[in-house]
Amino acid sequence: MSDRREGCLIIIGGHEDRDPKGERVILREVAKHVRGGKLVLATVASHQPEGYFEEYRKAFDDLDIGELVELYVEDRHEAGDRDKLAVLDDAAGIFFSGGDQLRITSQIGDTRIEERVRALYERGGVIAGTSAGASVMSDTMLVKGSSNETHRIGDLHMAPGLGLIRDVIIDQHFAERGRFGRLLAAVAHNPRVLGIGIDEDTAAIIEGRRLRVIGDGAVYVVDGADVSFSNVAEASSDETLSMHDVRVHVLAAGDEFQLDRRRPTPASN
Amino acid sequence: MSDRREGCLIIIGGHEDRDPKGERVILREVAKHVRGGKLVLATVASHQPEGYFEEYRKAFDDLDIGELVELYVEDRHEAGDRDKLAVLDDAAGIFFSGGDQLRITSQIGDTRIEERVRALYERGGVIAGTSAGASVMSDTMLVKGSSNETHRIGDLHMAPGLGLIRDVIIDQHFAERGRFGRLLAAVAHNPRVLGIGIDEDTAAIIEGRRLRVIGDGAVYVVDGADVSFSNVAEASSDETLSMHDVRVHVLAAGDEFQLDRRRPTPASN
Repeated sequence: MSDRREGCLIIIGGHEDRDPKGERVILREVAKHVRGGKLVLATVASHQPEGYFEEYRKAFDDLDIGELVELYVEDRHEAGDRDKLAVLDDAAGIFFSGGDQLRITSQIGDTRIEERVRALYERGGVIAGTSAGASVMSDTMLVKGSSNETHRIGDLHMAPGLGLIRDVIIDQHFAERGRFGRLLAAVAHNPRVLGIGIDEDTAAIIEGRRLRVIGDGAVYVVDGADVSFSNVAEASSDETLSMHDVRVHVLAAGDEFQLDRRRPTPASN
Repeated sequence: MSDRREGCLIIIGGHEDRDPKGERVILREVAKHVRGGKLVLATVASHQPEGYFEEYRKAFDDLDIGELVELYVEDRHEAGDRDKLAVLDDAAGIFFSGGDQLRITSQIGDTRIEERVRALYERGGVIAGTSAGASVMSDTMLVKGSSNETHRIGDLHMAPGLGLIRDVIIDQHFAERGRFGRLLAAVAHNPRVLGIGIDEDTAAIIEGRRLRVIGDGAVYVVDGADVSFSNVAEASSDETLSMHDVRVHVLAAGDEFQLDRRRPTPASN
């Protein structure tokens, strides 16, 4: 895969600054990658997409976006509509807004829209997503699991995601909703995946296998490579997670992380 | 210190089961250590201690406590009262209920009550504490710092605690209030201290330098020994914490941890 000229993923932890008078660090980064081209706002994660487009239209108004177009898919049949597909043909980027990650994958998974999204990425486009739109980027995605408590073994729901990035699992609204426990548990299931927890108004920008942090909060990386013990396979489903020797990195704006080497680099270097 | 015959610390993350019809795993453990002797319920952390004693009296009623006596100190002058001190003379244990950790330390710190508490511990008694009563056990204690968000460098308040246990810093209501960020930040200040985050209805029992977990949730240990980078000293106070290579252990009931070796042992071993 590394030979292929891929685009850029901008994975946002939700509640990014959308105030037309605000700094909008993250939307500005999206615009930078779109370079005056067309950005498709995919509101498919939402059951009630009304209002999303208008809010983003205002937020992107004075940023360098050539055209902002909404893409909504009411049901799976629509995901093959010629005019819906055409929207993506000359796009420079797509931005998945928040809602329910299962709506994204169940509506567009294995459809021609998904093909176009992948084609956009493979020709160097930018794929951005916030909240549910962030979670869907990985091979396996977190769907639900209790926040604000230590994880019970049986209490985590995962599902196949869009698979734009391999060997990671993403969680959003991370510190704000106390999701450390559930991300630890996801990594316990298979330490092959790096856990990536993204705070609100914070984004992980991924180009190749390099991750860079922008925004107000932190990106947490949970690395289970050295885990010496976990009870995830043995304990009954209502038992509390036990997991020893987890490596955690807290990355703030400017910090970088090499996904393949699993190593961080401070912002100052 | 290791030669001295010390007692036992029962450090509780708050909201321990106090239902007279419930299992009361943690209170049962306290009673086991009191062995039919006198337990002093110190409500000094509370500004309004009314009701606490009655609740604990009911909760301990059918457990093996010889006598349950309340100790409240309205102000610092009272902390030298002969009858208040006498309460502690023949006690087998003391239990600090919740409230404000600064009330405990500012009312009894460097008083003869504190002397008696230390003497009780040194003669093999049990010192239990929940919530604020848990935080005060360490040399340096966490007083406040925002929960449910990633830590800002300048946003953490620490103060001297009772110092019954060295080289650790304790946080309570841990997963429930999303306090991972602030415990990480406390450890970033000086990785000499191990961070110990205790969930509600969960306790760390410490005898010597061995920690054992009981109760419903988890005890998190944050070990900063291998931290390769942190911005805690360099960044401005409103910046987000960055901290690389933190080791974390999630310990469930039955798991043990050797504080000096900084190593966990699974429950099954």
